[in-house]
Amino acid sequence: MEHAQITAEELMRLARDEVPVAGNLGILVEEVEPGYVAARVPYREEFVRPGGTIAGPIMMALADFVMWGVVMSLRGPLHQAVTTSLNINFLRRPVPGDLIAQGSILKMGRRLAVGEVSLYCGDDEDLVAHVTCTYALPPTP
Amino acid sequence: MEHAQITAEELMRLARDEVPVAGNLGILVEEVEPGYVAARVPYREEFVRPGGTIAGPIMMALADFVMWGVVMSLRGPLHQAVTTSLNINFLRRPVPGDLIAQGSILKMGRRLAVGEVSLYCGDDEDLVAHVTCTYALPPTP
Amino acid sequence: MEHAQITAEELMRLARDEVPVAGNLGILVEEVEPGYVAARVPYREEFVRPGGTIAGPIMMALADFVMWGVVMSLRGPLHQAVTTSLNINFLRRPVPGDLIAQGSILKMGRRLAVGEVSLYCGDDEDLVAHVTCTYALPPTP
Amino acid sequence: MEHAQITAEELMRLARDEVPVAGNLGILVEEVEPGYVAARVPYREEFVRPGGTIAGPIMMALADFVMWGVVMSLRGPLHQAVTTSLNINFLRRPVPGDLIAQGSILKMGRRLAVGEVSLYCGDDEDLVAHVTCTYALPPTP
Repeated sequence: MEHAQITAEELMRLARDEVPVAGNLGILVEEVEPGYVAARVPYREEFVRPGGTIAGPIMMALADFVMWGVVMSLRGPLHQAVTTSLNINFLRRPVPGDLIAQGSILKMGRRLAVGEVSLYCGDDEDLVAHVTCTYALPPTP
Repeated sequence: MEHAQITAEELMRLARDEVPVAGNLGILVEEVEPGYVAARVPYREEFVRPGGTIAGPIMMALADFVMWGVVMSLRGPLHQAVTTSLNINFLRRPVPGDLIAQGSILKMGRRLAVGEVSLYCGDDEDLVAHVTCTYALPPTP
Repeated sequence: MEHAQITAEELMRLARDEVPVAGNLGILVEEVEPGYVAARVPYREEFVRPGGTIAGPIMMALADFVMWGVVMSLRGPLHQAVTTSLNINFLRRPVPGDLIAQGSILKMGRRLAVGEVSLYCGDDEDLVAHVTCTYALPPTP
Repeated sequence: MEHAQITAEELMRLARDEVPVAGNLGILVEEVEPGYVAARVPYREEFVRPGGTIAGPIMMALADFVMWGVVMSLRGPLHQAVTTSLNINFLRRPVPGDLIAQGSILKMGRRLAVGEVSLYCGDDEDLVAHVTCTYALPPTP
């Protein structure tokens, strides 16, 4: 088994220092393996939207960040990798609680990386949302 | 031409008071017609991500909110309407500038509403992103 | 473990007798469990498109049918269930060979069912395409 | 106004001779402009699925072909261009009738082309389905 090309600490540092949109969520990266990243967003009251559930944009921001981490777990720090598309299905209204995301690679190509992210809430085993996401990779020198 | 079932002011109030995730972006609703909403997010440095472009989650949050507005422009305040799916294609790396979203309805059903949102940046006429989005509607009494 | 609400034979009969678009592909349903369906489309030369790969619409038709089967594996024959959205990512250009689809449920709701379908080709272990798909269910009496 | 890089006749010849999956639908290309293609699939009974509506895979196959035409209207014959993703929302159950597709470009990049396709049925002015679709382009020499 190869090692991941980036550490959980480095990913959290990137979120904090360079991507305020993600950093402001207080993302905790909990596991990084090659092609796999798990992260958690501790619950905050401001994440809730009418109807008493976690706001969708919080889940989309977390999934987008986790997929960026999955790409970097395979290729190392790639600041220039950008999302080209993201598709999310919201499956259940999450009860307020920590948001957990598990992202894994479906296809690591030379120009495009495609992955999926499963989102859970609190201790519930049921998926609250499912994401597929594509990143465009900068040309390799 | 019928009137919209909600005003720009009411939409902005909802964002500010009830959906902090959207309210925190400083969204300005600029136009509301039945089945159409245009909104603007004034530029902030914290929206930028590595590579010098606006972060994707900002665009997704704006699009999701605008589509909510489109639904309410046709049905009035519907706090219980929730996003069931959202698909975004990022088309161009936006130069830093105000983000503008124009959302319109594709199908207003009894149980589901589907719309599209076009995103622009600054004075550029080219699309920076395109979104399709589905909301589930609460049962009508 | 509960039993599936429909059999592989019944699914194939439906494809053949009622959905010519699927039936014409020669779909073989290989496995049906509650919330899971696996099917195969034996290779035909007419499925190939320029570039020497299996045409995308064949994969979309197969995935759509398999997801219909997944819904019926949980709810029994539901002729009125219709696809509301489908998202496919094509991951690798499949070498000519049998197309294999494995569909599973992500969320079985009262009004909407969401699932994913993984597509493989020949004996290759790598995904050739990945689908998420939503069906709208007829109201239960 | 520049000319399209391919004609309606050439597009139909490609469908007929090289993409049986599309050719078998009997697609009639009705208009080609740079970045825009309109096509029609005359009604056939075999396109109908349970519930009395046109089968989804017919619409997906037509949309995928039309988007290929849109790409070629801007770049000329590109047999190696392949679909990387397709997202379809089914909006209304079409009454049996000719299927009409209007595809237009959202972004023509060097490596990726993104477009949308609106689908209508018979003389009805309401959308029956809406598609966004991405093609990967072969490297230019």
